[in-house]
Amino acid sequence: MSAPAALNVVPFVSVDTMMKLINRHGAERFLTELAAYIEEDFRRWESFQKTARVAAHSPDGVIELMPASHDTLYAFKYVNGHPKNTRSGRQTVTAFGLLADVATGYPILLSEMTLLTAMRTAATSAVAAKYLAPPAARTMALIGNGAQSEFQALAFRALLGIDRLRLYDIDPAATRKCAANLARLGFDVTACAGVAEAVQGAQIVTTATADKQCATILSDNLVGAGMHINAIGGDCPGKTELHRDILLRARILVEYPPQTRVEGEIQQLPPDHPVEELWRVIAGQAPGRRGASEITLFDSVGFAIEDFSALRYVRDQVLLMPGVEKLDMLADPDDPRDLFGMILRAA
Amino acid sequence: MSAPAALNVVPFVSVDTMMKLINRHGAERFLTELAAYIEEDFRRWESFQKTARVAAHSPDGVIELMPASHDTLYAFKYVNGHPKNTRSGRQTVTAFGLLADVATGYPILLSEMTLLTAMRTAATSAVAAKYLAPPAARTMALIGNGAQSEFQALAFRALLGIDRLRLYDIDPAATRKCAANLARLGFDVTACAGVAEAVQGAQIVTTATADKQCATILSDNLVGAGMHINAIGGDCPGKTELHRDILLRARILVEYPPQTRVEGEIQQLPPDHPVEELWRVIAGQAPGRRGASEITLFDSVGFAIEDFSALRYVRDQVLLMPGVEKLDMLADPDDPRDLFGMILRAA
Repeated sequence: MSAPAALNVVPFVSVDTMMKLINRHGAERFLTELAAYIEEDFRRWESFQKTARVAAHSPDGVIELMPASHDTLYAFKYVNGHPKNTRSGRQTVTAFGLLADVATGYPILLSEMTLLTAMRTAATSAVAAKYLAPPAARTMALIGNGAQSEFQALAFRALLGIDRLRLYDIDPAATRKCAANLARLGFDVTACAGVAEAVQGAQIVTTATADKQCATILSDNLVGAGMHINAIGGDCPGKTELHRDILLRARILVEYPPQTRVEGEIQQLPPDHPVEELWRVIAGQAPGRRGASEITLFDSVGFAIEDFSALRYVRDQVLLMPGVEKLDMLADPDDPRDLFGMILRAA
Repeated sequence: MSAPAALNVVPFVSVDTMMKLINRHGAERFLTELAAYIEEDFRRWESFQKTARVAAHSPDGVIELMPASHDTLYAFKYVNGHPKNTRSGRQTVTAFGLLADVATGYPILLSEMTLLTAMRTAATSAVAAKYLAPPAARTMALIGNGAQSEFQALAFRALLGIDRLRLYDIDPAATRKCAANLARLGFDVTACAGVAEAVQGAQIVTTATADKQCATILSDNLVGAGMHINAIGGDCPGKTELHRDILLRARILVEYPPQTRVEGEIQQLPPDHPVEELWRVIAGQAPGRRGASEITLFDSVGFAIEDFSALRYVRDQVLLMPGVEKLDMLADPDDPRDLFGMILRAA
């Protein structure tokens, strides 16, 4: 195909292609490289056009658009969250996204992002923990053993060397699924009968539950000095996982405050409760962990810049990958002003 | 393919498929049917979740996301506007969009929307004119003869019987292109040397220019009593086409006031200047044309509900069309909680 004719096509990373990409690299290398892209974008946080995601809420869930742009690239993600979906064999969260050229507005990559969101969420959690978790941490409690759990485990091993996992889920079948996958990947796994048992000896606690309600997955008495909490399940209005008292004792790190105030654990707190922006820690403008007894909390809700980083990473990988599908997505008439003539000539 | 396996695929309407759909129906039938979908959605305007589009502005243009949702369907469109694009052989405006199921958040149709946006913009213009233009109108001036112009002409013939067109563009080559296409389609076409000549004898004036600046395409002295103005080129902050004095004499109809106040011709007016919402006219809650001398102005900027209608129409057509491409866009593991296991098994 000649160069001008290629103006109409957009490379498409299907689910199958994304799996190939992850398996070719190995998930941990993918997560490590993706984490570097995320860190790079967090360091230049101030130069992005940012907006809180645009949500359409309905009785069963939410559909969101998450745009972010820089001087040369624009990205957005479409993502839903429907906790009841698993009952009909569907994913709670599915997503796809697009990268575009700011100079022309032309799309340059369309990608599945159900898998990619799982990867970028885990990579972001591990990046935060790299700066905030106790340096000698080797054990993590994983509360909530659904679709996100293994990704978290792999990211924490890849970036922090965490290889001991203590699992708990309200549904034992979820824990069995997660334990089997993680044992196969070489983790030292302990399935626990409750949250209290799971957090024993853990320096890091990750909460990744999906119920759309204000829940207390983790109560205050279970949180010891020096613990790092990676709270990723509280991510929309009316959905939280931590007891409010934990928030009052912890140093709270967030992605984009205008979004986290509405969606994160801190929706339980007054809107002026002090929080720290994670990008400032990564950029060296604020300290990481400040001592052995500090309780740190990454109140993660997921922000569009992380998806921007993920699409940017996948684009760079796909450039090296032969045979990626291309979609006939953009009308490309010979004379750009003669859009209708193109239809006439096709008749 | 069995029914459960089909959960992962999303039908995709490529540019080629969209051209086939338009040509199979004929553009005027397509526009007429699409107009009926738009009218249906405008009549139930109040039941939509609405938001002004989310724009990322850059020195060369704008990229926008336009979501709208109803009780069962969600739609959004990605669209850019880059006036300099034609210099590199690209479209000023390209677009694609998605329709999704509100109950599950799952995408149900991905479609090119460069062509579809041209169709829906024209259909919306003609719907507005059906209620606002002088009943005996047969002649329309088309100021700006770029990519949108032929679509406007066809929609006005299909819905209002307009068959005499008076064309003007600052670039004579654009007028030649437009005149040739329209003559082939059976219109009575007059190429004019200026705006003043183009509006002579026209009951309807459509302005569809693309420069990203405040311009005066149409000056006040050219607007006579009883004229209907269909202003579609002023559609972002700092981009207008009409002299302010015209706005002060006209009855102004708009799509979604919070968006039009920022993007439309009325950005030239104080924010409390009275305007009428088009949906109220279509729903019978406000009068259409109120007399032979009334100057009416549809200050069109394009609103997400029109794209919702367009995607809904295309979805209904595609259901009847065999062989539409399907994209492997959604991860669909056997156990919805075992997303990582799907990657492991693919290895």
